[in-house]
Amino acid sequence: MSQNIYDDAGFFSEYMALDRSIGGLESALEWPRLRSFIPDLRGARVLDLGCGDGRFSRWARSNGAAAVDAFDLSNNMLDRARSMTNDDKIVYRRADLDTLQLERGEEHGYDLVFSSLTFHYLVNLPELFAEIHKALKPGCSLVFSIEHPIFTASSNARFITDALSGRDCWPLNDYQKEGLRVTDWLAEGVRKQHRTSATYINTLLNANFELKHFDEWLPTAEDLETSPWHRVLDRPIFLLMSARKRV
Amino acid sequence: MSQNIYDDAGFFSEYMALDRSIGGLESALEWPRLRSFIPDLRGARVLDLGCGDGRFSRWARSNGAAAVDAFDLSNNMLDRARSMTNDDKIVYRRADLDTLQLERGEEHGYDLVFSSLTFHYLVNLPELFAEIHKALKPGCSLVFSIEHPIFTASSNARFITDALSGRDCWPLNDYQKEGLRVTDWLAEGVRKQHRTSATYINTLLNANFELKHFDEWLPTAEDLETSPWHRVLDRPIFLLMSARKRV
Repeated sequence: MSQNIYDDAGFFSEYMALDRSIGGLESALEWPRLRSFIPDLRGARVLDLGCGDGRFSRWARSNGAAAVDAFDLSNNMLDRARSMTNDDKIVYRRADLDTLQLERGEEHGYDLVFSSLTFHYLVNLPELFAEIHKALKPGCSLVFSIEHPIFTASSNARFITDALSGRDCWPLNDYQKEGLRVTDWLAEGVRKQHRTSATYINTLLNANFELKHFDEWLPTAEDLETSPWHRVLDRPIFLLMSARKRV
Repeated sequence: MSQNIYDDAGFFSEYMALDRSIGGLESALEWPRLRSFIPDLRGARVLDLGCGDGRFSRWARSNGAAAVDAFDLSNNMLDRARSMTNDDKIVYRRADLDTLQLERGEEHGYDLVFSSLTFHYLVNLPELFAEIHKALKPGCSLVFSIEHPIFTASSNARFITDALSGRDCWPLNDYQKEGLRVTDWLAEGVRKQHRTSATYINTLLNANFELKHFDEWLPTAEDLETSPWHRVLDRPIFLLMSARKRV
């Protein structure tokens, strides 16, 4: 089971004070790019994995989805999602995605599986991807974002100055050493799983998905007017992908 | 047109003194992995782009290929390839891959297009991938290796020590800034083109290829007994891919 950091009171209150928590989907700079991978949702059944406060589930419904099943591990997040939602076609449930077992009736039932910034917390991706594959209708897609492997490789990295070049740089190491990373972000001891880009891609291909989009998000010129997004030009922080279940 | 660095006398003599130049295919540590992407070649027509001294072309023939067309920009390399080859089913020709135009009779004619550590020198990848797509039989593959984008991002980078962690690290920057990198390797002023992993993948997908393998090569335990390959665990140096022409 993954760490349930969103049920840590200190982490949760810090997290909810972030601009991206207050501002909803539109305040997440990577959202326009991720949105571009999402098919027409009119009449669609949607599965939202790591739904947080339910912002994507509500967006899907307002864009025509017929029904959304939304899962999260955090009771704090689920309470917040339910308090912000007035829609009986969105069903929020508590689940550990590392051991997710969808009900029999849910097999081959979804037109879209979506997940935002969740998979890098999970220990058991191959089994989850197999479960997602089973849940999707043939030809339908999994769309997700994660923290970029370049960003997760070194624990607690921050930019340093390279004395020889005089340039700021991101101190990369341990890229090929996959596994637990314990970082201090909003709270001490946040546990993530580092995987390489190759592992994410090959886990998808091995689960019989076809890669459709692979996007190492970078800010637009407009985003760059607000510091500190220029840092992303030196090293990516988000990786966005979509993958289609083979027919 | 790309720089023709292999026709620089100083670079060429230094290059030919490298272990991997002396030892042939088997001395390239990434070769076993790349080889695993190559289909059964019995009776196959093969295109070898950036053939160097012809080592892959000869290997393909000794593994059953019916014929190999091999291209390189360097007269030094082509002279060496011809001097090492006694096989009229391998045809070596000089070509600038940035403007490669295959002959009409070569369309849809190849069972495999192969390229080792060449594409990161080229300026014009989308047109080359379109030409490769045209040249392949439907369902057949392009298999290639490049220097990894993490490796090419920072010009003349070498490991530095992060004072805070005390760990050696690879000073990454400018990852998202694609384009020319001038590095000093065997000679001064070697010109490469940096592209992100996303750009390589999306250039393939846009050219109507399907991604089959994506491998950020890392050394085996046996390789690691020889310094300095443990550095590759901190940051990858090679990226190996295969992509299939959609039927």
